[in-house]
Order: sequence, then C-alpha cells, then structure tokens
Amino acid sequence: MEIVDRLLEGDRRAMARLMSHVENSSAHAKEALALIYPHTGRAHIIGITGPPGAGKSTLVEKLALEYRKLDRKIGIIAVDPSSPFTGGALLGDRIRMSKIALDREIFIRSMGTRGKLGGLARSTNDIIKVLDAFGKDVILVETVGAGQAEVDIAGSAHTTVVVEIPGTGDDIQASKAGILEIGDIFVVNKADRDGADRTKLELETMLELGFYGRKWKPPVLKTIARDGSGMVEVTEMIESHMDYLKSSGNLEVCNRERIEREFLEILREEVTEFIIENAKTQGLYLEILEGIICKERDPYSTAREIRVRVTGQNEPE
Amino acid sequence: MEIVDRLLEGDRRAMARLMSHVENSSAHAKEALALIYPHTGRAHIIGITGPPGAGKSTLVEKLALEYRKLDRKIGIIAVDPSSPFTGGALLGDRIRMSKIALDREIFIRSMGTRGKLGGLARSTNDIIKVLDAFGKDVILVETVGAGQAEVDIAGSAHTTVVVEIPGTGDDIQASKAGILEIGDIFVVNKADRDGADRTKLELETMLELGFYGRKWKPPVLKTIARDGSGMVEVTEMIESHMDYLKSSGNLEVCNRERIEREFLEILREEVTEFIIENAKTQGLYLEILEGIICKERDPYSTAREIRVRVTGQNEPE
Repeated sequence: MEIVDRLLEGDRRAMARLMSHVENSSAHAKEALALIYPHTGRAHIIGITGPPGAGKSTLVEKLALEYRKLDRKIGIIAVDPSSPFTGGALLGDRIRMSKIALDREIFIRSMGTRGKLGGLARSTNDIIKVLDAFGKDVILVETVGAGQAEVDIAGSAHTTVVVEIPGTGDDIQASKAGILEIGDIFVVNKADRDGADRTKLELETMLELGFYGRKWKPPVLKTIARDGSGMVEVTEMIESHMDYLKSSGNLEVCNRERIEREFLEILREEVTEFIIENAKTQGLYLEILEGIICKERDPYSTAREIRVRVTGQNEPE
Repeated sequence: MEIVDRLLEGDRRAMARLMSHVENSSAHAKEALALIYPHTGRAHIIGITGPPGAGKSTLVEKLALEYRKLDRKIGIIAVDPSSPFTGGALLGDRIRMSKIALDREIFIRSMGTRGKLGGLARSTNDIIKVLDAFGKDVILVETVGAGQAEVDIAGSAHTTVVVEIPGTGDDIQASKAGILEIGDIFVVNKADRDGADRTKLELETMLELGFYGRKWKPPVLKTIARDGSGMVEVTEMIESHMDYLKSSGNLEVCNRERIEREFLEILREEVTEFIIENAKTQGLYLEILEGIICKERDPYSTAREIRVRVTGQNEPE
C-alpha cells in the first residue's frame, strides 16, 4: 500500500492523510493499520490528564520542548471529548501550541468525539499506532477530565501524568476521585497560587494510603508550566518511571495486557459492525425495531435471536 | 419468573435483588429484563449532571422532596465513575441522602464502574428499566463531570439538568465545554456565592448563540439547594420541559431514537460476549494472542478472520 510505504519512509503528509482515514473509519484504514502494526511498539506513550483549567496544554507544550532538548521525536494527541459547539477551549489550545508547531519533529493532532460516541479511545489507539510506526519516540496524549474515556485512554499509556491545581475545601477532594489510581506521576501545576503545598500534601497523604507497599509510589511534583518551572523534574521523573517499568518487568506485563485489551476491542468492533450491517441489509431491521418500540418484542431476547441466527450456534462450541 | 412477578407486585426487596443481578450481569438478569420490558416506558427520566462540587447530590435530594409533594414515586440512581479507592465523595452523598432514604416511596441506588470499563451507561439503562417497571414515576439519574459516560447517560434521560456553580475566569469557560449541548435546563447552584449573576449571564449568552432558532431554549435558573431556594422553580421547569416534549412530538421521536440506541448496544454486547467466549473455549485464543504480541499477526486482520469464521460470511448477505 503506497500510503503505508510513504509513511514508513517518513512522509509527514502520508501520515496526516492516514490519520484522517482512521478518524473517518475509511475502508483503507484497517488495511493500512494491519500493515503498520509490525512497526509499532517502540514509542514511549505518555498520558496527561486532569480537570479543565489545570493548564494541561501548556504543560504538554513545555514537556515537548524538554524532550526536544533530548533530541526525541514527538507526537502530540489532544483529545477533547467536548462538542464542536463549544470549540473555544480547543481553539485556545491550538493557538498556544502553535509555538511548538513550527518544529518539524513535533506533530500535533486534535481529536474530538464528533458523533463517535464511545469510539474515542479506540481511534486514539489507532492514531497512537500511526505516530509510533512513523518513528515518534515520545507520544503525549492529552485528555480532559476524569471520565470513562480518560480512564480508557490512560490504559493505553505507559506513564500517566495527572495534573492538578491548588484548590480549597471539599471540591478538590471530590475532583480527585477516580484519577488517583490512574496516575503514575502527579503534578500540582500553577504552583504559584495559594495552597499549592497543601494540595501537594493532601495528594501525598491520599497516595500514601492507596499505594502502601507498592514498588512505584507516585511522586507529587510542583510546576508552573507557564514559565517552565519544574518541567525538567517532570521529564526526569517520567524517564525514571520508564526505567522502573523496564527493570521491574512491568513493561512487558503491561504491554501484553494492553495488546489483549486492544485486540478484544478491535474484535468487538469488527463483529458488531458486521452483524448490524447484516441485519440492516436484510430489511428485517426496521420491522424488528418497530416491534421493540411497540413492546411486542423485547430487545434482550431479540438480540439473542439475531446472534444465534448469525453464528448458527446456541452456545459456545 | 418469581422475582419479576414480585417486582411487578411492588416488592422492594425483589427490585433490589434484581438490581444486584443486573449489576453482576448474572444469568438471571437478561431473562428478567426481557420479562419486565413491556412494563417500562412510563417514568419521566431526569438526568442531573455537572462538575464535582457543584452540589448535585443536595439538589437531587431537594428535587426528590419537591416531587414527593406532588405525590410522585421516586427512583434515584447516583452514578459515580470514580474507583472504590476514593469512595469518600460517594460515602458523603449517601449520608446526605439518608434524610430522604426514610421515605419508602424514594428508592436510592449508587452505581460505580468497579471493573466494568465502558459498561456503565448500559447497566444504568438496565437499572432505569427496573425502577420504571417497578412503578416509579420519576427517575433521577445523577452523574459526575462531563465525560463520555455522562454524555451517554444523558442520552437516556428525557430531561437533562446541568448544574454549575458561580465561577471566575477561563476555568469556568473550559469546564462548560461539552455539557452545554446536553442540557435542557441549566442551574447555577450555590447562587449565594459571588459571581452567580455573571455565570448565569455567561451561560445565557452561550446558549443564546448555540440554540438560536430552536423551539426549546434551555433556561438558566439560580438555586441554593442547601436551603431549598429555587427548587420549586426547577421542578416546574422540568415539568414544562416534559410538556414541551409531549406537545412538540419530540417525546415520541426521542423515545424511538433511544430505544434503537439501546437495542444496538444490547445486540453488540450479546454478540461480542459470545464470540469472545467462543474463541476462548476453542483454545485458539492464547495462541492467537501470542502471535499478536510477537507481531507475527496483526489484530485487525485477525479480528476479521475470526469474524468470517464465526459467521461463515465474507460480506453482509
């Protein structure tokens, strides 16, 4: 496939075009992804997550600059599950990021959900594969918030950095729920604001409790990403985490788990797309749907009937 | 099925037990859900969402009390995608909610993700069905944040209430991304704090822009849920929204769309569970997985081969 050959030769335009195919789930996409798959698995994938307004984009930008000093090639994926209707924040990110967009060894791609409910984590994984095969050494994946999509995407990263800001009272407590256990490194950004040390201490206390006895206890660092303070330390800590993953054998275990998870996800999509397409082309679909809407049928038994019909099997062989 | 008969007769314990079956995806669950399906579709499903610390739980509690004054039977589902590791917020909610838990016509159920990545929206829909069949008139579904799970769950609600708090600067702007277009009613809670009127105005301006020309323009209300201020108005507005849905014909359209979405989701789960189970019991699974890990195979072509093998078809019939 020409687009794959050109991508593997380092053609940026071929890479960008393949990404568009992947996002539009075009027919070419799967064939190309199959071909590039053997060339993946070398990049260090770093997830950056945290609440809106924590300064993630600035931190990602500064992190990219630090890694450029180490002569690494960088891919950045900015995942924004918000709708096109409120693209303001996204636009802001793009403008800020334009400073680093001039470096040819840094490639930036934004991704939104745009009508793709639930599929964001899947397409993010595919975009990671494209950057990886292209030869990027470090792939930074920035996601907003602590919803399901973010947790799923964190599952794709080797190292997950959770960004917090100094906060007060119960609100902060609640907002930390769910992201504590996905973080390998915690960063209190905007550390020139009041309460940074308290937030750091709070996080450390909660982590002490949750990670008691584990080999890697997530450290909490302070940064002011805007002026670059603390960014060297964050970069070094990310490298330490990768060293830990390698030396402990966890890298191999996590890679195996990730590959299995991704494969099952791909298998699910492959099969369900087929079944639904099949039901629709056979013309029965609308009749069946009408029956469910009128409550003459129920969706659970109907799904089972369709499955038995398509596979020709009542129970697993 | 006895448990279904007892549920339909109004046995609260049977209802709670069925919910546990549903959450554990037990073998009984699907059979029972199929049986109760014809008894669903009567409840008004109201989604309450917003950022952590917005006071959603208190607002839900007060809303339940308002609806009890109208003699409606209430179901409350508190969806918390955070992990068991940080159950603090959840515990707090339960304690606050215990005030209303004494009313036998109010049933409260919390739901977490607990190892069920991606399936939260599906099980929430099933729990809604159980409450609906049991005879609840109003089902309040409380979710945190604005992640994918929240957007999916909002898709199940007839009326979605988005709760915000007075805020300042860019942070608020960013945190609104993604939830503006899922809200039918907006509430600025904790309205005794500074900046409530400005936040209300900001929201109204953004909504004016986004909903220009549409029939239902989401109103923005101010509340202090803690002391009950503004709760009568919120309840009346929710009722007005349902009146609008009915009179405009949108209720029927949305119901059809929701039923189709739910059916496809059930079909996906049914089929993929089967295929994966099948691959695993045939012993080929580990061999295949090993090949993918060693990069001798790729996951995309492999998924296609398995699909062809199971369905015996190359392309849709």
